[in-house]
Amino acid sequence: MMNNINSSETAMLDFSAWATEKQARIENVLNSTLPAANAMPQTLHNAMRYSALEGGKRVRALLCYAASELCGTDTKVADAAACAVELIHAYSLVHDDMPCMDDDDLRRGKPSCHKQFDDATALLVGDALQSLAFEVLSQTGLCAQTNHQISMLNILAKASGSTGMAGGQAIDSASVGKTISRADLEQMHQLKTGALIQAAVLLGGINGNIVKITALSTYAKNIGLAFQVIDDILDVEADSSTLGKTAGKDANNNKPTYVSILGLTDAKQHAQQLYNNALDALTPFGESALRLHELAGFITQRRF
Amino acid sequence: MMNNINSSETAMLDFSAWATEKQARIENVLNSTLPAANAMPQTLHNAMRYSALEGGKRVRALLCYAASELCGTDTKVADAAACAVELIHAYSLVHDDMPCMDDDDLRRGKPSCHKQFDDATALLVGDALQSLAFEVLSQTGLCAQTNHQISMLNILAKASGSTGMAGGQAIDSASVGKTISRADLEQMHQLKTGALIQAAVLLGGINGNIVKITALSTYAKNIGLAFQVIDDILDVEADSSTLGKTAGKDANNNKPTYVSILGLTDAKQHAQQLYNNALDALTPFGESALRLHELAGFITQRRF
Repeated sequence: MMNNINSSETAMLDFSAWATEKQARIENVLNSTLPAANAMPQTLHNAMRYSALEGGKRVRALLCYAASELCGTDTKVADAAACAVELIHAYSLVHDDMPCMDDDDLRRGKPSCHKQFDDATALLVGDALQSLAFEVLSQTGLCAQTNHQISMLNILAKASGSTGMAGGQAIDSASVGKTISRADLEQMHQLKTGALIQAAVLLGGINGNIVKITALSTYAKNIGLAFQVIDDILDVEADSSTLGKTAGKDANNNKPTYVSILGLTDAKQHAQQLYNNALDALTPFGESALRLHELAGFITQRRF
Repeated sequence: MMNNINSSETAMLDFSAWATEKQARIENVLNSTLPAANAMPQTLHNAMRYSALEGGKRVRALLCYAASELCGTDTKVADAAACAVELIHAYSLVHDDMPCMDDDDLRRGKPSCHKQFDDATALLVGDALQSLAFEVLSQTGLCAQTNHQISMLNILAKASGSTGMAGGQAIDSASVGKTISRADLEQMHQLKTGALIQAAVLLGGINGNIVKITALSTYAKNIGLAFQVIDDILDVEADSSTLGKTAGKDANNNKPTYVSILGLTDAKQHAQQLYNNALDALTPFGESALRLHELAGFITQRRF
């Protein structure tokens, strides 16, 4: 799908090297941020490391780093921001997989946290990963401008809470088996997935001026929704072994998705439109927004 | 027990009026901080309000306000600090009561959150209350000194995480049915209950100088442990209706407690010693630490 995106193979190779470098970088940052596996309490720390390391494509960290490059954000700040966002994301996956939520046994190709450990540990892992995200962002001396640091903490807290990610998850749980409108579906995903993706971009771009931040918001909102539409498409089109999580789960769970509401063809078209909107927002910045441009392609073109 | 504490009835009356005023104050702050019950997603917001409002004696908020009075911390800052600490405490109770943890049906005399709503909602309530705590403390313009604000966020994050409250909870879960030493029990409680109580005092005292903060740390550490020893004593001596939660739970769950390790008499003596240590730390401040002094009595004398 979307063959017209990113026709330049050279750019993609450059991007691939950039992404690989950043993925290794965030892995190192997370590795040194998470408490050591042999630090008390050991089971909890082991389980936190199990759940947050070696995980996924690190799309949120990549978005954060790309925004930081556009806005000239200090590397140390970008590292902390990317780390905090990935920790929040990791916590949300651990809790979402629990029996009382999606009850998913598989995550990133491994047993999910509550399967590998137990439910109590998974609950505490999620709780502690969330705390750690805020601990990382509140390190003394992280930002030369302390008001930036406070803003970052506030953006992340709002994106994670009841009017952000947790709120979206609540609407998602409540919508199982119900017919909901496209607008409601969009709002649910804007909270459940979009809010944290937007936070990733805004945290990376904390050093940007108002013009850049406004553009980044528009970019992030569209790419966040595109991400979710693609996720719904993948849930239908891919299989579990390539997804690294249980495929067909949404349909099996009778959850409304972009595919169930729009159909597969229109869902793909919608993803394309969101992608176009995201790129339009970057136009004023030309080459300096290259990585964000490429990331939009990476997110919407994800092959399985 | 401990009849020699707070013999002045007049001081107790003054304290009682002060505590009642602060309890009403924190209730108002929480009420206006929590999203409205009719704000989307409604069930989640209703459940958050159900879990965080009209709750308990607000010991942590009282400690926070008392420390703020000793250190001349701005009222607005003290309100935010007390609110954030109570939100973290409320989240911990919601998660601790869940079936995969203590599986407790009763909390503060009402059905616990997962009984009143459901497990998925309780999970998200805890998650969202934690985020809200960090949102409250990261409001733009909260502190004139932004480095104070960042310190407050960092203290709360550390106190909540895997080397604080969540870590203590993990050790607690792992210790069921095991024989542990008094030192290990003390360390577990220092994390599980003590860390957040210490955070409450330190956040309230954020405006204090190094002498006051050091003294507050010692005070908080001792009173936090005393609080837990008393909790263990209450679990044996009180009944469910007066406790507002299921009594005898620890013994039934084969959990090590101060009573099971020290025996009832020595546990009471230990509480008295911790109380004395806490008061000793306040000695240099005389009358200006009156409320903290009285709170130590309030915590260790709690009648049922």
